Amino acid sequence: MRLLYHYPLSPFSRKVRLALAEKRLPFELRTEKPWERRAEYLDLNPSGEVPTLIEDNGFAVPEAAVICEYLEEAYPDTGLLGETLAERVEVRRLVTWFDSKFALEVTDNLLGEKVLKRLAGRGGADAGALRIGYTALGHHLEYLGWLAENRKWLAGANLSLADLSAAAHLSCLDYVGDVEWKKVPAVREWYARVKSRPSFRPLLAERVPGFAPPAYYPDLDF
Amino acid sequence: MRLLYHYPLSPFSRKVRLALAEKRLPFELRTEKPWERRAEYLDLNPSGEVPTLIEDNGFAVPEAAVICEYLEEAYPDTGLLGETLAERVEVRRLVTWFDSKFALEVTDNLLGEKVLKRLAGRGGADAGALRIGYTALGHHLEYLGWLAENRKWLAGANLSLADLSAAAHLSCLDYVGDVEWKKVPAVREWYARVKSRPSFRPLLAERVPGFAPPAYYPDLDF
Repeated sequence: MRLLYHYPLSPFSRKVRLALAEKRLPFELRTEKPWERRAEYLDLNPSGEVPTLIEDNGFAVPEAAVICEYLEEAYPDTGLLGETLAERVEVRRLVTWFDSKFALEVTDNLLGEKVLKRLAGRGGADAGALRIGYTALGHHLEYLGWLAENRKWLAGANLSLADLSAAAHLSCLDYVGDVEWKKVPAVREWYARVKSRPSFRPLLAERVPGFAPPAYYPDLDF
Repeated sequence: MRLLYHYPLSPFSRKVRLALAEKRLPFELRTEKPWERRAEYLDLNPSGEVPTLIEDNGFAVPEAAVICEYLEEAYPDTGLLGETLAERVEVRRLVTWFDSKFALEVTDNLLGEKVLKRLAGRGGADAGALRIGYTALGHHLEYLGWLAENRKWLAGANLSLADLSAAAHLSCLDYVGDVEWKKVPAVREWYARVKSRPSFRPLLAERVPGFAPPAYYPDLDF
């Protein structure tokens, strides 16, 4: 069986889980705590980052961005990058937006400080980082709102990797109660649609010991 | 004529210039200072990052990673991502390594602190960041050395985007004199081969006012 080394509150792991499920590719999960830097895992992915996908034949595909491009090439049915060159540019632009800019400005400063830092035993959250993270989250939610108001899905007419990237980050922030959905109705309406997909269910059922999500976290009506 | 908005000492701009030149796609350059956050440029790329490619017909392709995937799909002659799925995974893994891990741990801490911070008027280099950057550079050069000793090009038998990514970062660090080539002969031998390609020449001829590179910077024998 196909195997994915992942961490439950890693948005990059979540994105790949969503992509695999949307493509109806069965897989098993194995939890990897990247901060432990296990030698056996570093052999699979020298960067130490999660996730890494291991195909049935043992072929290892490391890094979320690499896995997603690989899945499109190896399993082109249910494409998640769009059809035309212009669609594919817009999907990849937004994936880069969420996995680079949003990750650095928001996810690292909020989820990173509140959860991953504590799990890795590197102390408590830094107030300055949280402040920067919340300010950036406000700007990003505005941009997301604009996209959600003007398009059916974030990159255009079809669900794409852009939606999965964005929803993966937001779902992790939602786990720590950081998204004020009432303030951003268009984003909430879009997120409700992603959240209600069968691919999303396993993510919503998962819990990280020591960190309880808000009561509304798994609800489709939130 | 195809147009590339770039910044001379941006490794991401350099990677795209090398990719365009290797694919023999003619282009003109326009310098963009990303820290100025020009409204007209933000219309082309909302993230404000360089580079952005404008095709003859006006089609805008923002972000280095997006441009490189676009170029492979739009102009498949002279492929830079490899042929087989396994080759493409290895090329993209190394591109991710250099453009995420190396960029964050080395380029941001050295080039970012010494040059880009000053250009953007955000003060002088932080000693702690420089220390972290030099330590990380040592580890990365070791890994590069291992790759260069065991393979003809970084990802395997052929020149690929992995070489262009790595060389783009190293060329910017070399501009500020941060690479001790004598300590890493295998890396130097590989870099000399990349440096001697016609695609590299325009990069070596460029100067940023106020920052003079070391005398050996443009030399093919260094």
